[in-house]
Amino acid sequence: MKVVALAGGVGGARLAHGLQQVLAPGDLAVVVNTADDTERHGLLVCPDHDTVLYTLAGIANRELGWGIAGESWAVMDQLGVYGEETWFRLGDRDLAAHIVRTARLRGGARLTEVALHLQASLGVPTRILPMADTPVRTRVLVDAGWLDFQDYFVRLRQEPDVRGVTFDGAPAAAAPAEVRDAFASAEAIVVCPSNPVVSVAPILAVPGIREAIDAARARGARAAAVSPIIGGRALKGPADRMLASLGHEVSALGVARMYAGLVDVFVLDTVDADLAPAIEALGLRAVVTDAFMTDDAARARLAAETLSALA
Amino acid sequence: MKVVALAGGVGGARLAHGLQQVLAPGDLAVVVNTADDTERHGLLVCPDHDTVLYTLAGIANRELGWGIAGESWAVMDQLGVYGEETWFRLGDRDLAAHIVRTARLRGGARLTEVALHLQASLGVPTRILPMADTPVRTRVLVDAGWLDFQDYFVRLRQEPDVRGVTFDGAPAAAAPAEVRDAFASAEAIVVCPSNPVVSVAPILAVPGIREAIDAARARGARAAAVSPIIGGRALKGPADRMLASLGHEVSALGVARMYAGLVDVFVLDTVDADLAPAIEALGLRAVVTDAFMTDDAARARLAAETLSALA
Repeated sequence: MKVVALAGGVGGARLAHGLQQVLAPGDLAVVVNTADDTERHGLLVCPDHDTVLYTLAGIANRELGWGIAGESWAVMDQLGVYGEETWFRLGDRDLAAHIVRTARLRGGARLTEVALHLQASLGVPTRILPMADTPVRTRVLVDAGWLDFQDYFVRLRQEPDVRGVTFDGAPAAAAPAEVRDAFASAEAIVVCPSNPVVSVAPILAVPGIREAIDAARARGARAAAVSPIIGGRALKGPADRMLASLGHEVSALGVARMYAGLVDVFVLDTVDADLAPAIEALGLRAVVTDAFMTDDAARARLAAETLSALA
Repeated sequence: MKVVALAGGVGGARLAHGLQQVLAPGDLAVVVNTADDTERHGLLVCPDHDTVLYTLAGIANRELGWGIAGESWAVMDQLGVYGEETWFRLGDRDLAAHIVRTARLRGGARLTEVALHLQASLGVPTRILPMADTPVRTRVLVDAGWLDFQDYFVRLRQEPDVRGVTFDGAPAAAAPAEVRDAFASAEAIVVCPSNPVVSVAPILAVPGIREAIDAARARGARAAAVSPIIGGRALKGPADRMLASLGHEVSALGVARMYAGLVDVFVLDTVDADLAPAIEALGLRAVVTDAFMTDDAARARLAAETLSALA
């Protein structure tokens, strides 16, 4: 079964890892958000791609929730000696990816080509596809004004209330050929439990991607979304407070309303089972299951249940 | 006493360290060769500047002869995983300098400005001044053809005989204002015991530097060179074989001939005392002393003797 998943960071990476476990090698493509990419110390850092990369390669740092397991920090410490900002921590082994990526991009490669090279180097059987080859950058409006996404997300620890979101560069971006090809052969599409506002929305804002999903569904592919909100709280990150400050209902139902028209199936946790009728009233099939992904087996089980609802 | 030293890598760095020990803070400027600079993994590496930097900062790796003491290699190992060439080894803490340098250059800073920033960050009281802000690159002719300098120096371990040397970019380069200012206020000039062919010659090939030395001497500053050849052998590196294959005499006298007209004093080791009359016949004052720099005290003593010959 050829599957395309849409993913942001940690939550998306976990379900992507579940999908990779249950699918034949090569049958999964993950379209990742690039709108939280950021240039640090002259190097292009792609947090969502790399979280998915390290998770699918089996080397993710599960304690931190980002970066590589067993990291060292020698470069970062020395960058601090040279007066560089150090609030965006980059481990030594992690930095190698940013160095290679930046060098190859400057040499004329597309972001997608570099991403596929990194994945092949780490033996990942899944294609992790940037949503766009040109820069798209999320900016968030807080009471103090507009912020670059990582200023809000890392430096300010997601503390300010978000009043608005833009994806600079999205209108001029385009879905790369690899993304279009993945959707063109997809039998199932899975929107991972990532932040709807700043992980999934920027992917859908790239011209051609929403159209590619609609076209796949028009020829019979079916699509599911897995709720990133369980019991009114985000599994990870600021999605819950962000939904609230932007006027959405902070629940699986609130997320289902955002995805109505995009997917056929909505997967939610058993603690939210009472929301299933309202979700079905939106025209979605509600699948109630254990949506916590506490270990590798739980990732695989949730992936398998999601796919079986689409089969 | 305001002193300007000309230096390449290890030997030059050692005498520069001696000079820094015996001079008042701020009285020493070291003009360093940049013609063996190289771009690795998209980052600009300045081996001679950084060897002098780390030596004057007291953090040089004395065992390796390059890099920082107690280095780790996590980034390099991971770069290898991504298929990058790994024969030019860069330590983790060392890489921080290359990352900062490259980022600031791309941001519009001059190489000199970045160098001064790195030096200030490490608390070095000496100005270590790149000979030029624009790229100058040594290429060497071996029997197999022309090679980039680091291909010859590191990858091929200086094994091929050198038949010719060019400094690409030198004719279009210019001595930066900081270099011109240093010479303009210099009371003494010291050519360190660096490779005459690929460390000192490229510095002198930058338009304006030879003229600045001549102008300083014309107004009373005096200049000395310290022999990098002792007993017919280079203290470090391929200078001896390089001099031979290029048709120079491999001795302190051979080096003195190359520097006749540039300096007033030539410092050589006691083992070469028999060469002193021939050196004096070139119009140079020969100073015979212990020119091995086995420890910090020996560096300071050689520096002090050199300066006292110029006072």
